[in-house]
Amino acid sequence: MQRVGFIGLGAMGMPMARNVVRAGFPLTVWARRPERADPILQAGAGWASSPAALAGSVDILITIVSDSPDVRALVTGPDGILTAPRPGLVVADMSTIAPAVSRQLADECAARNVAFLDAPVSGGTQGADAGTLTIMVGGDAAALEIARPVFEAMGSNIFHVGPSGTGEIIKLVNNMLVGIIAAGIAEAFTTGAKAGADVETMARVIGVSAGASWQLSQQFPLRAFSGTFHPGFMTDLLVKDLGLGLELGAEQQSPLLLTALARQLYGAAQARGFGPDDYTSILRVIEDLAGVEVRAPGV
Amino acid sequence: MQRVGFIGLGAMGMPMARNVVRAGFPLTVWARRPERADPILQAGAGWASSPAALAGSVDILITIVSDSPDVRALVTGPDGILTAPRPGLVVADMSTIAPAVSRQLADECAARNVAFLDAPVSGGTQGADAGTLTIMVGGDAAALEIARPVFEAMGSNIFHVGPSGTGEIIKLVNNMLVGIIAAGIAEAFTTGAKAGADVETMARVIGVSAGASWQLSQQFPLRAFSGTFHPGFMTDLLVKDLGLGLELGAEQQSPLLLTALARQLYGAAQARGFGPDDYTSILRVIEDLAGVEVRAPGV
Amino acid sequence: MQRVGFIGLGAMGMPMARNVVRAGFPLTVWARRPERADPILQAGAGWASSPAALAGSVDILITIVSDSPDVRALVTGPDGILTAPRPGLVVADMSTIAPAVSRQLADECAARNVAFLDAPVSGGTQGADAGTLTIMVGGDAAALEIARPVFEAMGSNIFHVGPSGTGEIIKLVNNMLVGIIAAGIAEAFTTGAKAGADVETMARVIGVSAGASWQLSQQFPLRAFSGTFHPGFMTDLLVKDLGLGLELGAEQQSPLLLTALARQLYGAAQARGFGPDDYTSILRVIEDLAGVEVRAPGV
Amino acid sequence: MQRVGFIGLGAMGMPMARNVVRAGFPLTVWARRPERADPILQAGAGWASSPAALAGSVDILITIVSDSPDVRALVTGPDGILTAPRPGLVVADMSTIAPAVSRQLADECAARNVAFLDAPVSGGTQGADAGTLTIMVGGDAAALEIARPVFEAMGSNIFHVGPSGTGEIIKLVNNMLVGIIAAGIAEAFTTGAKAGADVETMARVIGVSAGASWQLSQQFPLRAFSGTFHPGFMTDLLVKDLGLGLELGAEQQSPLLLTALARQLYGAAQARGFGPDDYTSILRVIEDLAGVEVRAPGV
Repeated sequence: MQRVGFIGLGAMGMPMARNVVRAGFPLTVWARRPERADPILQAGAGWASSPAALAGSVDILITIVSDSPDVRALVTGPDGILTAPRPGLVVADMSTIAPAVSRQLADECAARNVAFLDAPVSGGTQGADAGTLTIMVGGDAAALEIARPVFEAMGSNIFHVGPSGTGEIIKLVNNMLVGIIAAGIAEAFTTGAKAGADVETMARVIGVSAGASWQLSQQFPLRAFSGTFHPGFMTDLLVKDLGLGLELGAEQQSPLLLTALARQLYGAAQARGFGPDDYTSILRVIEDLAGVEVRAPGV
Repeated sequence: MQRVGFIGLGAMGMPMARNVVRAGFPLTVWARRPERADPILQAGAGWASSPAALAGSVDILITIVSDSPDVRALVTGPDGILTAPRPGLVVADMSTIAPAVSRQLADECAARNVAFLDAPVSGGTQGADAGTLTIMVGGDAAALEIARPVFEAMGSNIFHVGPSGTGEIIKLVNNMLVGIIAAGIAEAFTTGAKAGADVETMARVIGVSAGASWQLSQQFPLRAFSGTFHPGFMTDLLVKDLGLGLELGAEQQSPLLLTALARQLYGAAQARGFGPDDYTSILRVIEDLAGVEVRAPGV
Repeated sequence: MQRVGFIGLGAMGMPMARNVVRAGFPLTVWARRPERADPILQAGAGWASSPAALAGSVDILITIVSDSPDVRALVTGPDGILTAPRPGLVVADMSTIAPAVSRQLADECAARNVAFLDAPVSGGTQGADAGTLTIMVGGDAAALEIARPVFEAMGSNIFHVGPSGTGEIIKLVNNMLVGIIAAGIAEAFTTGAKAGADVETMARVIGVSAGASWQLSQQFPLRAFSGTFHPGFMTDLLVKDLGLGLELGAEQQSPLLLTALARQLYGAAQARGFGPDDYTSILRVIEDLAGVEVRAPGV
Repeated sequence: MQRVGFIGLGAMGMPMARNVVRAGFPLTVWARRPERADPILQAGAGWASSPAALAGSVDILITIVSDSPDVRALVTGPDGILTAPRPGLVVADMSTIAPAVSRQLADECAARNVAFLDAPVSGGTQGADAGTLTIMVGGDAAALEIARPVFEAMGSNIFHVGPSGTGEIIKLVNNMLVGIIAAGIAEAFTTGAKAGADVETMARVIGVSAGASWQLSQQFPLRAFSGTFHPGFMTDLLVKDLGLGLELGAEQQSPLLLTALARQLYGAAQARGFGPDDYTSILRVIEDLAGVEVRAPGV
């Protein structure tokens, strides 16, 4: 059974790591703040003294951190993964970062006989807990086959989507749609509610109509519609991802009109202090603009 | 069994009327252009000489026409439904029109002992053919119970959504989301494709991720992604519905930022001559802005 | 000297009528609410019992009212201008209404030997007081020459801009720019102020730079920047004009992306109760979104 | 008379440097590509072997280059300005860069007894040629007094706008307005023209109305309206500046809805190959969306 390393024990990473342990893989972890590792150590994981130490001793090394510079530092920084990696090591970066950075790191890793997969996920903390994440993998197909059993411990939909960087591209496309659809639900439902329609009824009816979406049937009922804004997926992270999406559009000279507008509305959510809350907080921004409150605790 | 009248034998109305006949209801129709009725007459329907004649001889009278003035003319115009209606008649208007007009007509009908339901539908020509439409009914609950067996011949999800006008409100909320999500898919997928991702793969992966929507899994693969723009649902009609949605927002003083932007992009589709085509033609507008073509015949 | 009639003694109309009297023209007025005419009667104007009476007794009849239906009612309604007009009468409609309605009314008037000019104005209550309005005249050039001396009592820039309706078209283009530029100033200045720049300094510097505009040098210092929101030009009227502009764009299938977005932001101003205030209230909407206050009493 | 150094002999810098020479200042220059200096050397300027050499031998050192990293490299890079600067040196950076970078460089310079002013300009190549630029200066007031005579050779409006970085903030606010207003003119004029109004007439009338702007009276008649797209100010540079403005908004959590939308439209201009053309090329993007051409060679 493959030896697995794990870096990034946050709101997503911790339940993902637990599922790796549960599936029976020998797991070793490292964390910048060691106290964050306590729960997984108690669950049976071992501790490594640095990313470099991990990279020398495991078969598959999973990273899931905040942004491009964090991943770059883990891979190429002092005491980083490329210090003295085990030949044949597979690094699976499950963070959401710039596709161009993913590709560069894959090239640098390849030069050291290390495979670097970009393998971002969708499904939120619910999916991470349940082990039902969607994992979109860019990079070498053979390396994916090595990592597949570990991915299967964390997700139920594993896709090989193309060469290096393609996983990140598709994740950004997905999250642009998340941002647009959630903002769209916020404004359309606010208008409907202000006109007198019941939020729960609207959600049920549209859930089986052409306006249906995962956001409407899954995320909004659990969060904004019931007045709960504990994330889920933080506004701050969605803003980061929309920013990466807009950068991709700028590189590609591909206009992103709705994405750009949605990005600014989530910025208004941050300005109100909703950055650490669930991104469905966008509903509260639109409610304020419209001077009305839209809730349906029973949805 | 209730005697059913039907006015509005268009792309949606004709298959709906066929399903009423198939379910065994005695059907009588009227059409401004009588030749449009030929197929349903051959299928066994009878002919009435005017809306007034229909309203005097049926239990349930279905109307599904283009816009508010058309419905108003049918109901209150010369030789219209309110000329000499059968007491207890139930009018089920399945058009998408302004909620305020629906409410006014319901009031005028009530004064003549006629029940007027707003009962717009979602599901497109596919749903109309298959008899699997979603029907969102506003108005009197008892009248809905009278009409329900006929609705069940046309749809698989029948909802009583509130008092008069509420069906139209929810339909407009739904179609605002249709317009926003389709425009969002167009821009996000164009960017992803320009960056090198495969359209079919994106659609499959995002279809099981947080960016999933009915549009992405049902409409785009059948139309825009496969280069087919035969409607489905015409751009011109979506523009009309977004216009009604924006009017509702104006009445309610409820800002509709993404809806307003999407509306203008569909206007650009009209300017290119895509008005009679499927609304997923929005993809061609964004492709032109980005200077790229996004197709995946195999989706 | 031409005998002048006047209908529409509002915030704009009253100072315009005064300037007509001051210039020595014999003036007769009618008002739906006669008490509103008191100040101008005291200034020497006469009273007519109806629009029809005015139309039978003056050479030039000025109208400046709220919207298309108001003008239509004045011209074609019972006791309206076309009841028994003096042959050769020139109607100068200085309202901002739909160009298509202007053209229709001009046609109906022409059939009765009445000239109908569309002659909307720009310059706000300041310009109306000072007699320095810009007047954009569509319609017959000979009729304009008859009206010109009266126009010169009210404005300092009188333009013949083309056939019937063209005055309204240009007025709508102008007001779309008013709406866009004011919203642009609001968001750009809010960001600059939040970043630490002084509002008065920004206004002075940009006033001689490529971002300069009439709004920035004239309207904002007198209103929003000094915390004064007495109109000026009401948010409600700008919303109406942007609506007319968007209708024109819809007719012409000409996309108005920024206009549509700005329109929704002014709708948010209405939702906060700023409808009767100056349109530079848009600054308060953006300030709220950004959580900051932008004022420079000394500008 | 102060000895002046100059780095950045581009479309703006070259005419600015010429005006410094014309005013009688002894000028020394350096350029990464020495051949670009030929015209100014022929006009009497001297040559320095590096930024470091310049910084050791002049009183005032002007830089005007493309973006933040270029300025940072000039100041802190190898052979850069801070290698061995003359004590009391005033660096006047007239580039448009991120305010935060300006502030950092000012701090690093201060630690070496060098004053660093941010002094971006507005007025385009016309203003640079004519010596009528607006210069917005952030930083130490005493340093500005030293540089003022040199600034006066290049500009006619010199403003001390606040502490370090404030010049850049105001420049970004200005350029956000440039981007929004130009895009607004493009869409509003395209609609007016499609409805039948004459472009020249619209420009003349609105030029004395509330929709007036510098763009409309100065830039559009010389470029887009006359079918000339030679810059002026390149689309690519406006895109860069709007990007810096959006970054500032993100830092400040201040929503920039119109700016974000305009940014994407200029991106569409880049996608069509208009990046090196004048930014009024935005008119060609909107024309294409509307399917019409808007020109008025006589404006």
